Amino acid sequence: MYVAKCRQGESFTQGKIVPYGDISISPCSPILNYGQGLFEGLKAYRTEDDRIRIFRPDQNALRMQTGAERLCMTPPTLEQFVEAVKQTVLANKKWVPPPGKGTLYIRPLLLGSGATLGVAPAPEYTFLIYASPVGDYHKVSSGLNLKVDHKYHRAHSGGTGGVKSCTNYSPVVKSLLEAKSAGFSDVLFLDAATGRNIEELTACNIFIVKGNIVSTPPTSGTILPGVTRKSISELAHDIGYQVEERDVSVDELLEAEEVFCTGTAVVVKAVETVTFHDKKVKYRTGEAALSTKLHSMLTNIQMGVVEDKKGWMVDIDPCQG
Amino acid sequence: MYVAKCRQGESFTQGKIVPYGDISISPCSPILNYGQGLFEGLKAYRTEDDRIRIFRPDQNALRMQTGAERLCMTPPTLEQFVEAVKQTVLANKKWVPPPGKGTLYIRPLLLGSGATLGVAPAPEYTFLIYASPVGDYHKVSSGLNLKVDHKYHRAHSGGTGGVKSCTNYSPVVKSLLEAKSAGFSDVLFLDAATGRNIEELTACNIFIVKGNIVSTPPTSGTILPGVTRKSISELAHDIGYQVEERDVSVDELLEAEEVFCTGTAVVVKAVETVTFHDKKVKYRTGEAALSTKLHSMLTNIQMGVVEDKKGWMVDIDPCQG
Ligand SMILES: Cc1ncc(COP(=O)(O)O)c(C=O)c1O
Ligand SMILES: Cc1ncc(COP(=O)(O)O)c(C=O)c1O
Repeated sequence: MYVAKCRQGESFTQGKIVPYGDISISPCSPILNYGQGLFEGLKAYRTEDDRIRIFRPDQNALRMQTGAERLCMTPPTLEQFVEAVKQTVLANKKWVPPPGKGTLYIRPLLLGSGATLGVAPAPEYTFLIYASPVGDYHKVSSGLNLKVDHKYHRAHSGGTGGVKSCTNYSPVVKSLLEAKSAGFSDVLFLDAATGRNIEELTACNIFIVKGNIVSTPPTSGTILPGVTRKSISELAHDIGYQVEERDVSVDELLEAEEVFCTGTAVVVKAVETVTFHDKKVKYRTGEAALSTKLHSMLTNIQMGVVEDKKGWMVDIDPCQG
Repeated sequence: MYVAKCRQGESFTQGKIVPYGDISISPCSPILNYGQGLFEGLKAYRTEDDRIRIFRPDQNALRMQTGAERLCMTPPTLEQFVEAVKQTVLANKKWVPPPGKGTLYIRPLLLGSGATLGVAPAPEYTFLIYASPVGDYHKVSSGLNLKVDHKYHRAHSGGTGGVKSCTNYSPVVKSLLEAKSAGFSDVLFLDAATGRNIEELTACNIFIVKGNIVSTPPTSGTILPGVTRKSISELAHDIGYQVEERDVSVDELLEAEEVFCTGTAVVVKAVETVTFHDKKVKYRTGEAALSTKLHSMLTNIQMGVVEDKKGWMVDIDPCQG
C-alpha cells in the first residue's frame, strides 16, 4: 500500500510504498471521532497484450479535491494522486487478474489523522492507497432487484451527498441490510426534500431509458458525480441517445422501459425489478437492453479490445517500478 | 485509556487500561472507509471534599446503544460502559482538576474496526475511552453569538442526526469555520425539510424562553437527545417553568426573551445574540437570566455543593483502583 502524510494546509511530500498492514492512528483524530475522511475507488485492467491500464484516474483525483474542500481537508494534487495510484498498481502488478478474470480494485483514502479534541479540521492528513483483486461480477449474476426506500434518506441539500465522504455510507448500512434480508440486491434512495425523486443506490448511480431518451438525476449536491455515470452518458450520446440530466420522479421510474446502474464496481448493470411499496415493476434486460450494449462499449475500451479514442485510459509503465 | 474489543454480534470481553497512545487499525475498517463510528462525551468532577463523581453515565451508555442499533454496530452493555468509564477515571484520577478549576472530559468511542472491503457492518468493534482535563469555560467567556445557517444543514429525517455518530460532525466543520471567521461563536442549524425550524448547534442543544415557557425542539430523529438538555428541562420544570418540546420556528427564536444552549462541554450557556440573514437580535444574559440560575443549579449538583436528590451522580470508589 501507499502512504503519504501532510500537515494541514501544506503539501504532501513523496509517499512510500509499504507492506499492507494496520496503520497507527491517534485516538483523538477527526477520522475516528468526527468522520473526517474521504475515499475513492478505481480499477486497474490487464489487457490481452499484457499491458496494465487504469481508467480516468484524474476524475477520481478531482473528486477527492472537491470532497477535501467540502470537509476542510488538505488533499494531494492531481499529479500526486495519479502518481500514487500508479505506484500502488505497479507494486501490486502480479495481483492484476488476467483479462476476463477480473480487475484490481484500488482504494485511495484521505484521512484526518492528526490529533485534535474539538470539532475542527485535523492538523495532519494521511493519504493512503490499498488494492485488492476483484472478480468480474457482471457475468455471474443477473439484473438487480431494487427496493425504493421510503424510510431512510442518503443525503440532504447542504450536506455531503455530492462528495465521496465516509459519512455517507455507515448511515445507509441499516437500510441496505433490511433490503438484503428481504431478498433485494440494493436500495434506491429518494431525495430527502420531497421524497418524490430518485437519487441513487448505496454505491452506484441510476439511469432510466424510455424510447430514445436516457435520463439520470442531476448532480446538484445530493448524489455522487460518478465517473462511470459521466462516461456512460457520453457513450450513450455517441450512439444517438438523448441524455438528460434532470429530476426523475418515482412515477417516471415505474414507467420506464429500462433501468440501469453505473459505478466502478458494477460497471453498467441492468435493473430487473424495482419495488416501491407494494408495487413491483419489471424492466427489459439481456441482449436487447441498452445497458448490455453500453456495458460492452465501456469494457471494450477498458480492456483494450477497441481503441481508446477518448483518452480515458492511462497506461502503467512496467519499467517504472 | 481503556480498550476492549468484540466480534460482531458477540459480547465485549473485559477491557484493559493501557497507556494513552496511537491505536493500530486496518486500512480496510469501516471506521476509516465508511464512517462506522460513534462517540460519547461526559465529565468527572472533583468535589470540595475530594470525592470524584461522574454525571449520569447510564444516559451516555443508552445513547451509545441507540446509536449502535442505527449504525448496525455491536455496543457494550450499559454495565460494561459505566464500569469502563469508572476504570478510565480511576486510572486518570490525578488529572481530575480541583473544584472550580475544571473537570475531566471523558470520550468513549465505538469503532467499526474489523476489515471488510464492501459497505457492510464491521466484523469487529473496538470500544475505547480516553480522557483529558478541561477548564471551566463558562466563567471566562460571555454569551454566545450565533449565526443561523441557511446554507448547510446538519441532519435530515431518515438520517443519523438523532444519534452521536461521527458522520454528523465533519460535514458541519465548514459551516462552523465560516461562522467563526465572521466573528460568531457557533452555528445554529435549521431543519433540512422546511428550513423554518431551529434544530441545534454543532455540539449543543438550544432552548428559548418567553415568559414562563421554556421551549426546545423535539428529539424526533434530527437532533441529538442531549443528557444536559434532559436534565435542564427537569430542573426548569422543578422551579415552575412550563417546558415544551415542540417545533420552534426562527420567527419565535427572534422574538424570545432569552436563548440558551446546553451540552456536556458548555453545561448551560446564555446566547447573547442571534444573527439571521441581516437581522441581529440581542437577548437577556447575566444575573437576571434563567440560564444563569439553571447553570448554578446543575453545577451545584455536579460539584456536590447541594445534595443530589435526583440520583444523577455516580461516585467513583477510590479504593477500586
Ligand atoms: C454513492 C455512490 N454513487 C455512485 C458511485 C459510482 O461512482 P463511480 O462511477 O465513480 O464509481 C459510487 C462509487 O463508486 C458511490 O459510492
Ligand atoms: C450535536 C450535539 N447536540 C447536543 C449535544 C449535547 O449533548 P449532551 O448534553 O449529552 O452533552 C452534543 C454533545 O455533546 C452534540 O454533539
